[in-house]
Amino acid sequence: MVYDILIIGAGVMGLTSAYYMKKRDPSKKIVVIDKYSGPAQGNSAKSEGGFRNTFASETNYLMADTSIDYFKHMQEEMGYDMKLEFIGYLWLFNEEQYEGIKPSLDIMRGRGVELDVYTRDQLESMIPSLMTDFDDDEEAELLGLRNVDYGVYGRKCGSLDADALVRAYEAEFLKLGGEVMYNTEVTSLILKPEEELGIPGEPFVWQKSNIVGVETSKGEILAETTVVACGVWSHILLDGIGLDSFQRPKKRQLFAFKDTKLDPVMKTEGLNPENALPLVILPTAGIFLKVELTEGSIWLGCADMMGRKFELEEDPQPEDDYYTNNIYHALVMYFPDFEDVRPMNSWAGQYSINSFDETPVIYKEPGLIYVGSGSGSGIMKGDAIGRIVDALHAGEENAELYGGTKFKVSDLGVKNRCVEREEFVI
Amino acid sequence: MVYDILIIGAGVMGLTSAYYMKKRDPSKKIVVIDKYSGPAQGNSAKSEGGFRNTFASETNYLMADTSIDYFKHMQEEMGYDMKLEFIGYLWLFNEEQYEGIKPSLDIMRGRGVELDVYTRDQLESMIPSLMTDFDDDEEAELLGLRNVDYGVYGRKCGSLDADALVRAYEAEFLKLGGEVMYNTEVTSLILKPEEELGIPGEPFVWQKSNIVGVETSKGEILAETTVVACGVWSHILLDGIGLDSFQRPKKRQLFAFKDTKLDPVMKTEGLNPENALPLVILPTAGIFLKVELTEGSIWLGCADMMGRKFELEEDPQPEDDYYTNNIYHALVMYFPDFEDVRPMNSWAGQYSINSFDETPVIYKEPGLIYVGSGSGSGIMKGDAIGRIVDALHAGEENAELYGGTKFKVSDLGVKNRCVEREEFVI
Repeated sequence: MVYDILIIGAGVMGLTSAYYMKKRDPSKKIVVIDKYSGPAQGNSAKSEGGFRNTFASETNYLMADTSIDYFKHMQEEMGYDMKLEFIGYLWLFNEEQYEGIKPSLDIMRGRGVELDVYTRDQLESMIPSLMTDFDDDEEAELLGLRNVDYGVYGRKCGSLDADALVRAYEAEFLKLGGEVMYNTEVTSLILKPEEELGIPGEPFVWQKSNIVGVETSKGEILAETTVVACGVWSHILLDGIGLDSFQRPKKRQLFAFKDTKLDPVMKTEGLNPENALPLVILPTAGIFLKVELTEGSIWLGCADMMGRKFELEEDPQPEDDYYTNNIYHALVMYFPDFEDVRPMNSWAGQYSINSFDETPVIYKEPGLIYVGSGSGSGIMKGDAIGRIVDALHAGEENAELYGGTKFKVSDLGVKNRCVEREEFVI
Repeated sequence: MVYDILIIGAGVMGLTSAYYMKKRDPSKKIVVIDKYSGPAQGNSAKSEGGFRNTFASETNYLMADTSIDYFKHMQEEMGYDMKLEFIGYLWLFNEEQYEGIKPSLDIMRGRGVELDVYTRDQLESMIPSLMTDFDDDEEAELLGLRNVDYGVYGRKCGSLDADALVRAYEAEFLKLGGEVMYNTEVTSLILKPEEELGIPGEPFVWQKSNIVGVETSKGEILAETTVVACGVWSHILLDGIGLDSFQRPKKRQLFAFKDTKLDPVMKTEGLNPENALPLVILPTAGIFLKVELTEGSIWLGCADMMGRKFELEEDPQPEDDYYTNNIYHALVMYFPDFEDVRPMNSWAGQYSINSFDETPVIYKEPGLIYVGSGSGSGIMKGDAIGRIVDALHAGEENAELYGGTKFKVSDLGVKNRCVEREEFVI
């Protein structure tokens, strides 16, 4: 049997793609294959689960903004509990950083992105547990910590449950008759000449060749179109046939805290209806915190760039020292309530980073579609990504994102790539 | 001792960069380090040694055109014998391919690139050994071979000795007092905080950190600036600190033939003053041939794309079958004189390919410069690349290429990258 479409990877990109392709034509035989035992078991569910529409690049904005709208629709009208909480994102900046990002803020405001800018005084009254001024603090100077002079608050931002999100798309895909095949590892892509001659050594360089399916731990599976959507593992399959995945895997660690000492940190005043701590990004080292309302906990991570190696790890682990002897030094200066509080839990996942423009890559080759390079924000753009993959597969020039916005499919491709580099990263 | 500049890699990019940085300020202590025992021992000298100014992208054109001029200057006025032969490049196309590249030809002509277009009849009389028409040939149809309908001949193109070229730059660098350190393998880049606190675990994520040198097989070597110019090996060092080399290694094989049966193939009429076979690119599978005038031989290669894996090999080897059971089938149809002729020699090197835009990447991070991603044409752009690296290091906005052309340094960087994707590739 030959499938119409075979999707490698049951993460967010694989399942949203599968869902929209099946929805377009439920008569198509579509299968999603994953080496793990269920959906989102690679890195999707290890995400910090933040979402935001505050992107400087138009491309990223469109994908995220429409995906957030659709997630809201899924939660409110389709009955999926994805723990969507619009608690906001709050970027903290010193004077110099704020000056630097002003042009990006103007661009975002021009699109109608709901942003509020707060001064230090305002922030101090809204987040009483936050320290903002280190001018007379020798230790802070030694550590090179930046003051908090401004806060930029994005309202259409917040927290979601990445695992529940991916499972919701899987459920919709299955409802339409889609197939999933778990515990099945793809070991290579199969390349065959369009016209086989039956001579040993095919395909020859002078033959027109297509991807016709995959070799897996359970044997060969053939398909008209194979979609590579396996995130940080994509390069293993694509390298094998000489195509580029345009991504490098980088570990990100998350630490969860639950301690009554942190109650003051979890409470804010006037930022959001819940008066809860939004996803807060400190002005130093990309350290961020996010409250988990349902758990009553705080999650903490750090966007470490230079110095954090690119490396594929099968089962990335959090490093004990990374919180205690590294992030902690800076964190406790901004939020002194963290003093002597230890994480109750920690885990690590891997980002699939496209360092060129920090934007997903979606392209087509004979018999193959690649979708990946989420660069840390693939989940929150997941709905748009699925629709774009579907449009590419259907040969359409534009994808229709949720709400009706048109998106030029080739903008995320390689040959006619047209994306701005994202300037508003964490 | 701390060097001013330490360059990793004594290939073409490393040594041209070293030369121009030393030339700007001969008082600077500059050292080039390589794991091999001499210059160009990685992949530079394994190149097919072709050069051309026939690039569709302005960026590639400027780099190649000015580099060719400087190579000519080195050969004619500086006394280096680099076997520079202006025998031309001849692209063979069928009707459809020709229509497709016409816009690129117009762009090139607009810049003054010397191009001649020949029809099939003209080609048949200029290259009597070439078969051009397979319309009634069942075997050719089975193989999917394209007819030769047109030839595009670039005059400022030809052949050079890549090894001699790199050695010439090394000689000039040494003359100025530059140092080389061979048989010295760099194992990692050293990242240190700007202000060391003396606490274990530095650099911390919240510290401002710089690359301060390298660990090598012979110990630590420190430098104000470290230049990573080690081609297909660059990602090993850059991955370690979480920076991207934007390249994937791909093997390319070359086969050399010396056989009196091929005398007719080596001779052409009216294409170039030598009446020698130019570098000819067949219309199928990127198969190319180049005459080596001093050796009296023909070199043959193939730009295999999909199907040829990306993989770093320490000592890539040519594959016996690759000529005999693969390229040969198509080659012998275009040049029947190859029938039963076996290669007298073969070797393999690795291209360092940037699949995004097939153009080199040059960027700066604290204490570090990366230059690489030659994508198969690094040697012929080598002079310009060295000047651009020097300008980036000196903090200049524009590099001055040979002949006075200004080149915006940031165009080859990541953040403000501005290059067109090359459409005229082999």
